[in-house]
Amino acid sequence: MTKAARTFALPIQVYYEDTDAGGIVYHANFLKFAERARTSWLHAIGWPPRRVQEDLHIQFVVKHIEIDYRNPGFLDDKITATCTLENIGNSSITFEQLIERDKTVLAALKVVCVTINAKGRPIRVPPQLRQIFGA
Amino acid sequence: MTKAARTFALPIQVYYEDTDAGGIVYHANFLKFAERARTSWLHAIGWPPRRVQEDLHIQFVVKHIEIDYRNPGFLDDKITATCTLENIGNSSITFEQLIERDKTVLAALKVVCVTINAKGRPIRVPPQLRQIFGA
Amino acid sequence: MTKAARTFALPIQVYYEDTDAGGIVYHANFLKFAERARTSWLHAIGWPPRRVQEDLHIQFVVKHIEIDYRNPGFLDDKITATCTLENIGNSSITFEQLIERDKTVLAALKVVCVTINAKGRPIRVPPQLRQIFGA
Amino acid sequence: MTKAARTFALPIQVYYEDTDAGGIVYHANFLKFAERARTSWLHAIGWPPRRVQEDLHIQFVVKHIEIDYRNPGFLDDKITATCTLENIGNSSITFEQLIERDKTVLAALKVVCVTINAKGRPIRVPPQLRQIFGA
Repeated sequence: MTKAARTFALPIQVYYEDTDAGGIVYHANFLKFAERARTSWLHAIGWPPRRVQEDLHIQFVVKHIEIDYRNPGFLDDKITATCTLENIGNSSITFEQLIERDKTVLAALKVVCVTINAKGRPIRVPPQLRQIFGA
Repeated sequence: MTKAARTFALPIQVYYEDTDAGGIVYHANFLKFAERARTSWLHAIGWPPRRVQEDLHIQFVVKHIEIDYRNPGFLDDKITATCTLENIGNSSITFEQLIERDKTVLAALKVVCVTINAKGRPIRVPPQLRQIFGA
Repeated sequence: MTKAARTFALPIQVYYEDTDAGGIVYHANFLKFAERARTSWLHAIGWPPRRVQEDLHIQFVVKHIEIDYRNPGFLDDKITATCTLENIGNSSITFEQLIERDKTVLAALKVVCVTINAKGRPIRVPPQLRQIFGA
Repeated sequence: MTKAARTFALPIQVYYEDTDAGGIVYHANFLKFAERARTSWLHAIGWPPRRVQEDLHIQFVVKHIEIDYRNPGFLDDKITATCTLENIGNSSITFEQLIERDKTVLAALKVVCVTINAKGRPIRVPPQLRQIFGA
């Protein structure tokens, strides 16, 4: 089992569905972009959400988000959602995330996820994931 | 147990989330409006989706949709999604639906739903619902 | 012109569209619920977004959000999105918002909006809105 | 200027945002997948929506959709949205589209788009696009 790089980047295309009548990317959709990057990272390390749930009997849920909107995104934009591991606590993982178009930061996020068991209770981040994420 | 009127109407407010960079309601969102009307009808007759699932062990899934887009919807529009029972078959219910702003039809839909059991197999529409919908 | 109450509450119904395969409300959708409450408040005080844009030549954009997820939301939930004016700065308005099911807080948000002109530059919150919001 | 292949295929990853509490892809989201394929095709032939609008002063709007839901989609699915040119009329383009997971068809669509001018009136599909699409 190898350690994952501590940063993951996902290219994303902005479609009509992502924009609003203000002519820009609808603000809530940046959270979707960020989630796609986190989930794609899980895919990349061999632990897609369904396998996490079936084999480890846990689920990641979002506990806290801080997001700064710095520049608008537009239809047809080719953007990148990056995800950097900031910290692994007992039952939480903190990510720093950026949504960028070339070198322009559209949004910067801090996202805290918690691992919960089937009953919805916080549970220790399992060693399988802990090891891969490099903590 | 009383029969429901064969038509149900739900008022809907158009928010930024519903629109796109073309300045109009994003076309896929009309399917959300239509689904809100069907689900609110279920609520109104005392069978919200979770009760349908828990008590009758079935679920409604959409099988077929035809939708005509007639006029654009805009931010701030106050629209109405109506839902008329067209037919109840063995395991399917067909609705005619309209999305209107005042007397202007924005979209007209024909929606076929199927009742499925926990294994995802089509199953007869249960008598409790059949009776209420008036068939 | 009268001052608005400093808090606004909007009832919201949770539909299938709002939920995800985890069986709960998808985390990004709480931002939609919060935006619906802010926009409905603008409607209630006579300044829906399109009028704000056409008459005052400004637009509100979200600049910063902090959100705490405290309890999951579920399909069929009848929730309330409240919006309390926290502060009006030169070109920004800060809201404290809660998404609640009965007395259970599902999510708590701090949302900072900025008024921008047609060129996307921050501009002073116009007196018409300042007055109504009671600042 | 070369003719485009008459079929275009786009790989799509199913994320939490695409699913609902029924544990499957939310039915309206198949329309988003289909639109991503049509728009990506425009990108591939050098006519992304913004260039179409700025250079040709037209916009594509969806006029009619028929969709058959054949099999459910699930979280983590890697699917393909294909788009086949069926017909180019005076001011309309008809596509046949499939959403597939491996060889399993999840949904089959017929989508009619119309080219409109800045005033929202139907206008002849411009020769630049007509030629590329091979009609």
